[in-house]
Amino acid sequence: AMKVGFIGLGRMGQGMARRLLDAGHALTVYNRTREKTEALGAGGARVAASIATLCRGQDIVITMLADDTAIRQSCRDEGGIVRSLPRGAIHMASGTHSVAVARALARTHAAAGRTYCAVPVLGRPDRAAAGELDLIAAGPGKAIERLRPLFEVLGRRTFNAGADPVGAAAIKIAHNMVLGCAMEAVGEGMALVRKYGIEAKLLHDVLTGGVFGCPAYRAYGEMIANDDYDSVGITATLGLKDADLAQEAGAAAGVPLPSGNAWRDRLVGAIAHGDGERDWSVVAREQARASGLA
Amino acid sequence: AMKVGFIGLGRMGQGMARRLLDAGHALTVYNRTREKTEALGAGGARVAASIATLCRGQDIVITMLADDTAIRQSCRDEGGIVRSLPRGAIHMASGTHSVAVARALARTHAAAGRTYCAVPVLGRPDRAAAGELDLIAAGPGKAIERLRPLFEVLGRRTFNAGADPVGAAAIKIAHNMVLGCAMEAVGEGMALVRKYGIEAKLLHDVLTGGVFGCPAYRAYGEMIANDDYDSVGITATLGLKDADLAQEAGAAAGVPLPSGNAWRDRLVGAIAHGDGERDWSVVAREQARASGLA
Amino acid sequence: AMKVGFIGLGRMGQGMARRLLDAGHALTVYNRTREKTEALGAGGARVAASIATLCRGQDIVITMLADDTAIRQSCRDEGGIVRSLPRGAIHMASGTHSVAVARALARTHAAAGRTYCAVPVLGRPDRAAAGELDLIAAGPGKAIERLRPLFEVLGRRTFNAGADPVGAAAIKIAHNMVLGCAMEAVGEGMALVRKYGIEAKLLHDVLTGGVFGCPAYRAYGEMIANDDYDSVGITATLGLKDADLAQEAGAAAGVPLPSGNAWRDRLVGAIAHGDGERDWSVVAREQARASGLA
Amino acid sequence: AMKVGFIGLGRMGQGMARRLLDAGHALTVYNRTREKTEALGAGGARVAASIATLCRGQDIVITMLADDTAIRQSCRDEGGIVRSLPRGAIHMASGTHSVAVARALARTHAAAGRTYCAVPVLGRPDRAAAGELDLIAAGPGKAIERLRPLFEVLGRRTFNAGADPVGAAAIKIAHNMVLGCAMEAVGEGMALVRKYGIEAKLLHDVLTGGVFGCPAYRAYGEMIANDDYDSVGITATLGLKDADLAQEAGAAAGVPLPSGNAWRDRLVGAIAHGDGERDWSVVAREQARASGLA
Repeated sequence: AMKVGFIGLGRMGQGMARRLLDAGHALTVYNRTREKTEALGAGGARVAASIATLCRGQDIVITMLADDTAIRQSCRDEGGIVRSLPRGAIHMASGTHSVAVARALARTHAAAGRTYCAVPVLGRPDRAAAGELDLIAAGPGKAIERLRPLFEVLGRRTFNAGADPVGAAAIKIAHNMVLGCAMEAVGEGMALVRKYGIEAKLLHDVLTGGVFGCPAYRAYGEMIANDDYDSVGITATLGLKDADLAQEAGAAAGVPLPSGNAWRDRLVGAIAHGDGERDWSVVAREQARASGLA
Repeated sequence: AMKVGFIGLGRMGQGMARRLLDAGHALTVYNRTREKTEALGAGGARVAASIATLCRGQDIVITMLADDTAIRQSCRDEGGIVRSLPRGAIHMASGTHSVAVARALARTHAAAGRTYCAVPVLGRPDRAAAGELDLIAAGPGKAIERLRPLFEVLGRRTFNAGADPVGAAAIKIAHNMVLGCAMEAVGEGMALVRKYGIEAKLLHDVLTGGVFGCPAYRAYGEMIANDDYDSVGITATLGLKDADLAQEAGAAAGVPLPSGNAWRDRLVGAIAHGDGERDWSVVAREQARASGLA
Repeated sequence: AMKVGFIGLGRMGQGMARRLLDAGHALTVYNRTREKTEALGAGGARVAASIATLCRGQDIVITMLADDTAIRQSCRDEGGIVRSLPRGAIHMASGTHSVAVARALARTHAAAGRTYCAVPVLGRPDRAAAGELDLIAAGPGKAIERLRPLFEVLGRRTFNAGADPVGAAAIKIAHNMVLGCAMEAVGEGMALVRKYGIEAKLLHDVLTGGVFGCPAYRAYGEMIANDDYDSVGITATLGLKDADLAQEAGAAAGVPLPSGNAWRDRLVGAIAHGDGERDWSVVAREQARASGLA
Repeated sequence: AMKVGFIGLGRMGQGMARRLLDAGHALTVYNRTREKTEALGAGGARVAASIATLCRGQDIVITMLADDTAIRQSCRDEGGIVRSLPRGAIHMASGTHSVAVARALARTHAAAGRTYCAVPVLGRPDRAAAGELDLIAAGPGKAIERLRPLFEVLGRRTFNAGADPVGAAAIKIAHNMVLGCAMEAVGEGMALVRKYGIEAKLLHDVLTGGVFGCPAYRAYGEMIANDDYDSVGITATLGLKDADLAQEAGAAAGVPLPSGNAWRDRLVGAIAHGDGERDWSVVAREQARASGLA
């Protein structure tokens, strides 16, 4: 059993932390709004009052934070993760963060004698709770080896993305963009057939009954065909964050992403029309709107 | 057994016609370049010297032609399908054609007392030969009923797209656009990760091991990850025809298709760079080129 | 004075034909709906009952037709321009037509011993009436020389686009695309500042008071700033025709046109929202709509 | 005469500061790399060793900094502008900054009893040196009144963008996007005609001889027609910063900017192909490259 700290107990974080606790690791948790620590505290986790106290004495600290600002703040200055972790300890960052953050934090951790690993995850909260996430792990080889027992508790599969945390960030960002673009394309296809008198559901059946028989098209295609975006996995507003991460990574590396832009434009429009808190597949409703259908 | 004429013996048409012959239908075939009729002729099909002679006495004529120009020409004037078919006979068009063609031919056939059904198919030549296509059938209900025995020979599944052939055209066009957009998005994602030191193959594994575990991403993703577009299903040049059909259908119905445009732009660029006769997934190479990678 | 036939008396054609008449040329006119010939007939032009009779004995026939279909039909078959013109006569086509039409008609005229020149014009109807158009002339050198006296009557300036009519078509198409893209970009800029509490008119003043002090931005910028598209020069529906010509020319020559697509998408959306008969600068309203502003 | 501090002596800043000095204002200058202060020092300006010493005792401090990071740093913490300026003094920011920076700095200045005005400028370095800039001024009315004598020295014209600095930022960002989109559209048009055998210069003449007879199209159109981007006003890399500001402002306010994206994609591609330090009109070369022309 390892000594593990966990920061960030949103819906994903709750499930992941619970898995670690149940697997017998010595778990300390911290969350900005303290109520979210209660269930885990009742289950046997120690609850820390600050990031600094959480970090003390840990082998590993995992963060599952919402965005770049949150992880930058949690790492900065006196009471932050970098200075509070024991020398030699590992910070495993599982949120979706920019390549710029991955690059910067890898550097500041290394300079301070700590290790930063980027281990973003794929899967929704129910998969996190079941320990069936896909993990994309990148960081110095020895650190990744040490993390491996945790990977086995958290996920069904781990992809090795090399020694540089930037690589894992890039894969997660690319993955989400490919997913977003699929939704936008389905939205375009469904708007098109509807204008020719065909129900969106029929195109959905043709797609998923054919070469698109996979969860991405099954789950999102059904939401789009039903024009029902209220069962929210990721909100359009968070989706726009992902789209921005893609464009930022693309610009920094010299990769124009025109489909990514088409997807991003629809997210922006969806938010402008009041759908920011709906599921991010609501880009398809925005596409329908642009076609005079909604 | 029915009397069936078959026009257009490209790779798809060969397989479909052979299925009908093997199922015991009385088959007559015609192809502009006569050599392509030889195998079927040797197998027992009657070979017609012209469209007009092929049409004589048939219950049903199937066309599997490359584009709008070809089907328009085959239907036009004295020796064309419309006037040469017996009254009451059905023209089942299985090529990918524009909504404009579907609309126009439905009208001219009806005015002449013949019936036009659009039955575009999904699947590659090997699936055609195995009778495992997906069919999208649209046309007057009685005609579709009469065609049903043929559907069972040709495909594993038939989607009913209503009484208006335009609907089936729209579905096929939308399907191909969604597929093309998926390739372009994968190409963007792979260019992105490559610039961050990650092999395209790894993103491919992440995608297909996750929510994209379906033939579209498996087959095309592998071609893209290998940067090998020489095993050609559909050429980029034919893909551009599909992209144009989508934009034409979108414009006529008031549906802007921005992802469709991103895909189409890459097809245009791929052709400009000499990749027109490669598989249409070569859009990903064009994306790599735009990123300074190829 | 030359013997000149004029086909197509829309708003542009009226002004052009009147200029030729006033300059003393022997003018015969034809229009599909005959009423439009009346004013010119009263002014001394001969009115022909058909294209064939109009063509008889002319040195030059000018067409000013709305689209490719119209000019193709006017040139086709027995009673069409190609066969009805005297051998050696010139067909000067001043409408906006595709590069495909320019290529095809140049060939059919030459094969029949007639000459096809593409001379598209720039300018609105009032400029046509004043003889202040810009002309883009392409065709065989001798034919262009013979047309020169007409150019002087019709325009203030003629650009020589070489011996191949395709060149003039390409320039006209590119010109209109650059213009359309300018409107779309202004629309985007104005939507942006409005969302930050700035009146569109102020951005208009900044633009036209600075590096954009030219008619394109002055005239269209004002319409957009006022959100008033009812003083129609070119309708959105006709603008979409122009956008399609650009995409068609781009695809045929291997030129992806992403700005052209952004513009075209907004035209499609504007038409979908019922603005098809408004001025083509209404793309800016569609942009506002996509931003939740209209 | 007023006591004026000036921070940021790049090519624009040099010219602006010199104008203020020549007009008799008591000028103190600061630049991170000190050599750039020499000419002004020799001309009578006081040279400060730090931002803090520069700010002491000033009525007004002008910043002309390259980006958001630079202005944020210059305002932050103990030795920054906000705390070092006398109470009641004005910070006039003339660089191109994000709406987010305008909003944040307006707030921090106000909270500290200082005033932030955004006064971005339009024009190249030669216009700055000649006092012929266009200024877009936004900030509290009284502060703008106090700045007016400086505006008269710096520019030929001032546009009043209201009391909120965010407004001026939005106008400047929109202006640059409209300009960038014009270049991209011209690049698309020129690539198109070149593929049809027409020299880019001819399209340039048609455009600027017609409705585009203004500096934006004259200057950039000529660079593009000559495919010569070595006379650099703004680099492609800086242009990408502008394109990002537009997309960031658009996303924050709910404004999709598809033309802006087409422009941005070409900037990204140009940089990927090694043209980052060329003039930002090099998007047209990237467009040519995408068309197989370069």
